[in-house]
Amino acid sequence: MREECGVFGISCNNDAAFNSILALHALQHRGQESFGVVTSNNYKLHSYHFQAQVSSVFDNIDEIKKSLPGDCAIGHVRYSTSGSKFGVQPMLGKSDKFRDFAIAHNGNLINISPIREQLIKQECVFQSDIDTEVVVHLTASGEKDSFLESFIYALKQIQGAYSFVVINQEVVIGVRDPSRIRPLVLGKLNGSYVLASETCALDIINAEFIREIEPGELVTISSDSKLASMFPFPQQKSSFCIFEYVYFSRPDSIMENRSIYDIRKEIGRILVEESPPKNNVNMVVPIPDSGIPAAIGYAKHSGLPMELGIIRNHYIGRTFIQPTLKYVKLE
Amino acid sequence: MREECGVFGISCNNDAAFNSILALHALQHRGQESFGVVTSNNYKLHSYHFQAQVSSVFDNIDEIKKSLPGDCAIGHVRYSTSGSKFGVQPMLGKSDKFRDFAIAHNGNLINISPIREQLIKQECVFQSDIDTEVVVHLTASGEKDSFLESFIYALKQIQGAYSFVVINQEVVIGVRDPSRIRPLVLGKLNGSYVLASETCALDIINAEFIREIEPGELVTISSDSKLASMFPFPQQKSSFCIFEYVYFSRPDSIMENRSIYDIRKEIGRILVEESPPKNNVNMVVPIPDSGIPAAIGYAKHSGLPMELGIIRNHYIGRTFIQPTLKYVKLE
Amino acid sequence: MREECGVFGISCNNDAAFNSILALHALQHRGQESFGVVTSNNYKLHSYHFQAQVSSVFDNIDEIKKSLPGDCAIGHVRYSTSGSKFGVQPMLGKSDKFRDFAIAHNGNLINISPIREQLIKQECVFQSDIDTEVVVHLTASGEKDSFLESFIYALKQIQGAYSFVVINQEVVIGVRDPSRIRPLVLGKLNGSYVLASETCALDIINAEFIREIEPGELVTISSDSKLASMFPFPQQKSSFCIFEYVYFSRPDSIMENRSIYDIRKEIGRILVEESPPKNNVNMVVPIPDSGIPAAIGYAKHSGLPMELGIIRNHYIGRTFIQPTLKYVKLE
Amino acid sequence: MREECGVFGISCNNDAAFNSILALHALQHRGQESFGVVTSNNYKLHSYHFQAQVSSVFDNIDEIKKSLPGDCAIGHVRYSTSGSKFGVQPMLGKSDKFRDFAIAHNGNLINISPIREQLIKQECVFQSDIDTEVVVHLTASGEKDSFLESFIYALKQIQGAYSFVVINQEVVIGVRDPSRIRPLVLGKLNGSYVLASETCALDIINAEFIREIEPGELVTISSDSKLASMFPFPQQKSSFCIFEYVYFSRPDSIMENRSIYDIRKEIGRILVEESPPKNNVNMVVPIPDSGIPAAIGYAKHSGLPMELGIIRNHYIGRTFIQPTLKYVKLE
Repeated sequence: MREECGVFGISCNNDAAFNSILALHALQHRGQESFGVVTSNNYKLHSYHFQAQVSSVFDNIDEIKKSLPGDCAIGHVRYSTSGSKFGVQPMLGKSDKFRDFAIAHNGNLINISPIREQLIKQECVFQSDIDTEVVVHLTASGEKDSFLESFIYALKQIQGAYSFVVINQEVVIGVRDPSRIRPLVLGKLNGSYVLASETCALDIINAEFIREIEPGELVTISSDSKLASMFPFPQQKSSFCIFEYVYFSRPDSIMENRSIYDIRKEIGRILVEESPPKNNVNMVVPIPDSGIPAAIGYAKHSGLPMELGIIRNHYIGRTFIQPTLKYVKLE
Repeated sequence: MREECGVFGISCNNDAAFNSILALHALQHRGQESFGVVTSNNYKLHSYHFQAQVSSVFDNIDEIKKSLPGDCAIGHVRYSTSGSKFGVQPMLGKSDKFRDFAIAHNGNLINISPIREQLIKQECVFQSDIDTEVVVHLTASGEKDSFLESFIYALKQIQGAYSFVVINQEVVIGVRDPSRIRPLVLGKLNGSYVLASETCALDIINAEFIREIEPGELVTISSDSKLASMFPFPQQKSSFCIFEYVYFSRPDSIMENRSIYDIRKEIGRILVEESPPKNNVNMVVPIPDSGIPAAIGYAKHSGLPMELGIIRNHYIGRTFIQPTLKYVKLE
Repeated sequence: MREECGVFGISCNNDAAFNSILALHALQHRGQESFGVVTSNNYKLHSYHFQAQVSSVFDNIDEIKKSLPGDCAIGHVRYSTSGSKFGVQPMLGKSDKFRDFAIAHNGNLINISPIREQLIKQECVFQSDIDTEVVVHLTASGEKDSFLESFIYALKQIQGAYSFVVINQEVVIGVRDPSRIRPLVLGKLNGSYVLASETCALDIINAEFIREIEPGELVTISSDSKLASMFPFPQQKSSFCIFEYVYFSRPDSIMENRSIYDIRKEIGRILVEESPPKNNVNMVVPIPDSGIPAAIGYAKHSGLPMELGIIRNHYIGRTFIQPTLKYVKLE
Repeated sequence: MREECGVFGISCNNDAAFNSILALHALQHRGQESFGVVTSNNYKLHSYHFQAQVSSVFDNIDEIKKSLPGDCAIGHVRYSTSGSKFGVQPMLGKSDKFRDFAIAHNGNLINISPIREQLIKQECVFQSDIDTEVVVHLTASGEKDSFLESFIYALKQIQGAYSFVVINQEVVIGVRDPSRIRPLVLGKLNGSYVLASETCALDIINAEFIREIEPGELVTISSDSKLASMFPFPQQKSSFCIFEYVYFSRPDSIMENRSIYDIRKEIGRILVEESPPKNNVNMVVPIPDSGIPAAIGYAKHSGLPMELGIIRNHYIGRTFIQPTLKYVKLE
């Protein structure tokens, strides 16, 4: 269940670092213990990684913005690697052909072990156990001429759930797995294209929601914000991750052309069909917060009343200091 | 001036993780913003990296110890990479020939750029800008048969100041640059060999100081704590880093067979010779804390009285929370 | 709107301090910036006051328990006086006749100024501006023979909203204003009587809910947990504070023999009668979290669907460190 | 040894609150766990009390300054009352004759118990166990016509060690015990008079050191900064507290017309006389930091060399968060 992560990308925006940080704050529910931002000023990549909630850095935001120059940026939130694993996200790759690039990844790949072994046999050196590093190496070691071709070559070899947002000195790339498991959406902010795991990250920076990235679609956003789309993979049976609907996403995000909120209500409706209430059932009780919409749907379609029976204690649980001191997850 | 770091290694000790953490606490003055520990249980490496002072984890020490199994360990303290750079220390390498290894590095290498470029041309993919990664790749890409030979092959190509402490599934290695710039000492704790940047890290775990690692000496400590020493490099003019004497080291550490404290006093004595007091000078005033021993030396040999004229405010400055919130250093 | 506070009392319990702290944790929503506990070992009162959320002290709980000996205790949570006002709660009084006592107060008194002036004319010295101190002085200066009589004498002179929980070396007292504005409930834990602002504080210590303290009722609980009840005030028109129903209380608390949750739903029902939906209204949207039950009630009785339109960001807002650094409220 | 506290007062200064906070920061070594400031705008007193080190509030300083209007102020640092005792300092008194006043106290009174009992018999109500409250009540209950007379009447009844700094709507008062045990100094800042426990508090606000308050001297500073001095007590044998010399004070403060630093060196000299080094003694080793000056003195007068043998670990110990979470001292 620690598969949640959130990714973000923006191009051709003169407040790219700050908008990334804001967007990651809106995606915080997808990964609460560390985050990273990589910016490009078309010449060099700059990075910032931190083991804390995004909101903890707003006090130092001016200093952080200064350290992240450039009009393009990508970002990542996740459950912390602090105390757990080597490697941070977005993950940097510096290669001969393609200079510097960085990859932010939401998802889990399933055929990684043999590829990693193969790459290691080809004398690649790994510095972590995380999936993303395999994609970094596959991309860098590709026989292809361009970075884009090489990245696509890498993607064609991996299987599993993913959305990637990638940056190099020239371009921001977003891609969604052909199986449609992990989400990725496209937005626009004053003429700049924006990529995000959920639409709530667009809302917080006042970007307009354009559409979802299609399953298997890859988009490139040039540094002057030209968008190109391609479908490099064979079509595949799609199977959107049910946890996005049920738990991961914020209810105000839009996925599959419907709000998560509506989808959750619909889940409640379907549950009535699949599992209608027995005679001795008097009410529907949601587990807050994410279970409330489904309960609304179940209640509406079963005719039962929905009642709150469980409350959430706001004084226990995540505070910004806990990533540092308490929520240390260890390998 | 951010070249300080502290390294530590221990082998064949049933409290390897905890002793490493204690030792890093004693080396905290060499790097106050992040630290890492890698342990080996002779089968697998485990790691813990944290953006905070070492003392901040003592409350969670049981959980941390559980996550770091194994009788061998290495550790590293440094100025944080949080918000600044990719890569953590100790840095992991996973290669075909040599399985997993991790390298902790104190020092600065001077001929890294051309080597990195060369490695990149040989299709190595870099994930950070830090020197240590070059050594990881050089080691992994060596033509040699054994890990040790390959690591020595790597060392022969680099120039600069360094002490390395290295771990893999079989061995802990310590090596000091032939130029003698960075310190490394050998100790013994109940039959287990211990390596550390300074003797104060031996003292805190009640290890006995054996001797300094010689300039250009490399020692291997097997998992049953057998020590082997070799001198793989041609002899070189040695030039111990003056900042170790003046500022980096703790005064109770022993370097070059003399305590740092004595060396600092001797610096004061030499300063009298080089720069004897003018007639109108009445007293010697140290800058606390590191300047006090030199002032004692200057006073003694000049016949002038030493007087305190400057005090240190203990209520401003580093607190454990500052790495997290305030001392974010950005690239 | 800063009138919320939470009070608690327990007698004849061998974990009185800890149960008080747990109960204050459950009452945290009534006052989040400081809390205090006073215990009695039938000989002396001991106190602990802290400017932080209750949960911040669980790490030091053994030390705190040791410092709070005794089988009887009262406690208080409130918006902090740090940086704002003299005086802490529970407030101590040491008088000639009655030795030591301490008063915890939830509410606001309305005729305090003339009484304070009168007391000051009688040579009382005040050390704060808070209402509770007036009650301390009125009690201490009473002509009555017993502490209880004197406290009742004090209560007869004040007007306004209040629940008081009071402790001295012999007794724990709870009293609720005749106007019924502030809540107070009675529970029992293994034969010990317990007083609390809300039943959720009983639940957390597994105490059984007995009943509400009646408007104008005063109960005394002796140190061997004998309960006595009296009604010292003339009957009055009662007017329970609407904010308890709407906002202050936790929905799982029981007040006026009904759960706050039911009351909030009923508010929704009444709102339909008072303000039926216009024709162009399509749905009911609650403000989370406290508005959800009323929306459920409004939806049920209006026939409109309830839909979530607003979500609560869990990553902004109160954390335990904010009382210290951010939420400083100043006079 | 918890008798240290620091007091400060300033009159007729348009940045009275901020200068008080700065001065308390310089006096932090005299009490590290809580502090308070009371200002007067000649009409009303305003207060701020906080359980933390002074430096923790500089981030919120604008908000704090706004909440503390007025040209006159007094302040106090001490070991925290959090979790320990009722009552904060400066302590407020509101009485019939004298309206509002506040008292900040450094010292310990020795004849308090019988006076408190007597006051309690006269129907005074106490709200804490701290000495200062007795002085508040003695002052308020005095038969005298003016506040000043009444305060002096109070002082005449108490015995022990003290410096008081007092404020009301008209005046700032400083007084030092006739026994000379606790220090108090007078300074001037742009025409405004300033009172402080040590001269280092003058230095930080660039106030000029005028002189020490004499043993038994009381000074009043009117709101237009007119100074009046009086000696209301019979002369007494003076006995300045040795701990001020040895431990409490900052070495750069001036007491008894000599710097603490010089006094500490002199202590070393006297120690040579009283306890000359035995034959087998080779060196003088100070306990840092406060022992260094005495060691310098002992070394100089004994002819032995001073050597550092003990160092202070800067990574353990007080940080601004510790007052809140760790250093909770309980009654």
